[in-house]
Amino acid sequence: MPNPTAAMLVIGDEILSGRTRDANMHHLACALTEIGIDLSEVRVVKDIPAAITSAIQALSGAYDHVFTSGGIGPTHDDITADCVAAAFGAHIDIRPDARAILESYYATTGIELNAARLRMARIPDGAELIENPVSGAPGFIIENVHVMAGVPKIFQAMVASVLPSLTGGAPLISRTYRVHRGEGEIAGPLGQIAEDNPTLSIGSYPFQVDGKFGSNVVFRGADEAEVDAAVAALAQVFPQ
Amino acid sequence: MPNPTAAMLVIGDEILSGRTRDANMHHLACALTEIGIDLSEVRVVKDIPAAITSAIQALSGAYDHVFTSGGIGPTHDDITADCVAAAFGAHIDIRPDARAILESYYATTGIELNAARLRMARIPDGAELIENPVSGAPGFIIENVHVMAGVPKIFQAMVASVLPSLTGGAPLISRTYRVHRGEGEIAGPLGQIAEDNPTLSIGSYPFQVDGKFGSNVVFRGADEAEVDAAVAALAQVFPQ
Repeated sequence: MPNPTAAMLVIGDEILSGRTRDANMHHLACALTEIGIDLSEVRVVKDIPAAITSAIQALSGAYDHVFTSGGIGPTHDDITADCVAAAFGAHIDIRPDARAILESYYATTGIELNAARLRMARIPDGAELIENPVSGAPGFIIENVHVMAGVPKIFQAMVASVLPSLTGGAPLISRTYRVHRGEGEIAGPLGQIAEDNPTLSIGSYPFQVDGKFGSNVVFRGADEAEVDAAVAALAQVFPQ
Repeated sequence: MPNPTAAMLVIGDEILSGRTRDANMHHLACALTEIGIDLSEVRVVKDIPAAITSAIQALSGAYDHVFTSGGIGPTHDDITADCVAAAFGAHIDIRPDARAILESYYATTGIELNAARLRMARIPDGAELIENPVSGAPGFIIENVHVMAGVPKIFQAMVASVLPSLTGGAPLISRTYRVHRGEGEIAGPLGQIAEDNPTLSIGSYPFQVDGKFGSNVVFRGADEAEVDAAVAALAQVFPQ
């Protein structure tokens, strides 16, 4: 049986003007290859509704999976969620579950959840949320399209979160442990825990709050007890 | 008058598998922006005839200029020239002028011009050759499509050779205003400024320094006074 196929849609004027050099395409290409999904086409389009919507429709119809990057932030040029909803004729508005995630994230950071930031809770009806361990605002999955952030650190975390569900293996358990230490401080003990748990996928995603570094450590694996034991091992070294 | 538009087609399995990291897209994006040609879409496709031919037809019809990279070497998977010819229904064979260039190049290097290398002289009837100062084998221009090599050094030489013959628009004026506030905080006023200046392209790009969020806001437009006025409007709300 042939491998499943995939396409990527990179959204953003800054890539096409040369201001920003895309890093997500290469990351996704490597990640998909590793798990046997065949990345067959990539398109890069501008922040123009018709361009985004028609690319989504074309790619979604032609390939098994579609991955987008970019355009899900709080500013006026972040139009991806609405364009993807339009591509599928889905209703979109601020969704309570996404809003709750933002409320909880901003409560811990002391930043105001204003109207602009609330736009990041605009999620099409029926879409499944994608966790964002870096900055709260979730991505989402609708039909066969995975909508993810353009900031490479967040894109990579979202890719790590969605790919395991595409391999057809046992659904992976995921836990995030938040440590108020920089990655350089936790790297030693975390490396040991990773070595002790070779069947787990353990990722670390740095953040900064009030000028202090922290790390969200994401543990993934098929065995819940093993995942929980690894989280507990880290919590013993760095209690919250 | 709006600037001319362009699209790029990157051809190659090695980009999509992650084996090679594309460098040509960013180079072309910067080069076109500099001369006022608006790169509006990029596609990356596999070494599959139908994929290449249909992408050429779609992009050639939709944009003023198309630039391709990759697939014009001597091996069996170098099928770009034949696919581009097919896209325009043009006859293609080893052309005497291209063959003479290869003969002359290989005579100076002492390398044999064998059957495989001779494939690089396959050029559609009526196409104009693009000089290759690096390794001899020419690219070509047919209709509005510029067919160039994938090796970055050669691609860049070919871009340098063809761009002067293209009429660009007015290079866009670009100003970046750095605000030491997160995107979520500036999004409201910035959205209003974008609405007030529909002819400008205004993008916001987040950054973090010393644990604090900031945003680089990029204003682009043909009219310098209008660009400056929009920057001033944002500076009034968020003085530096």
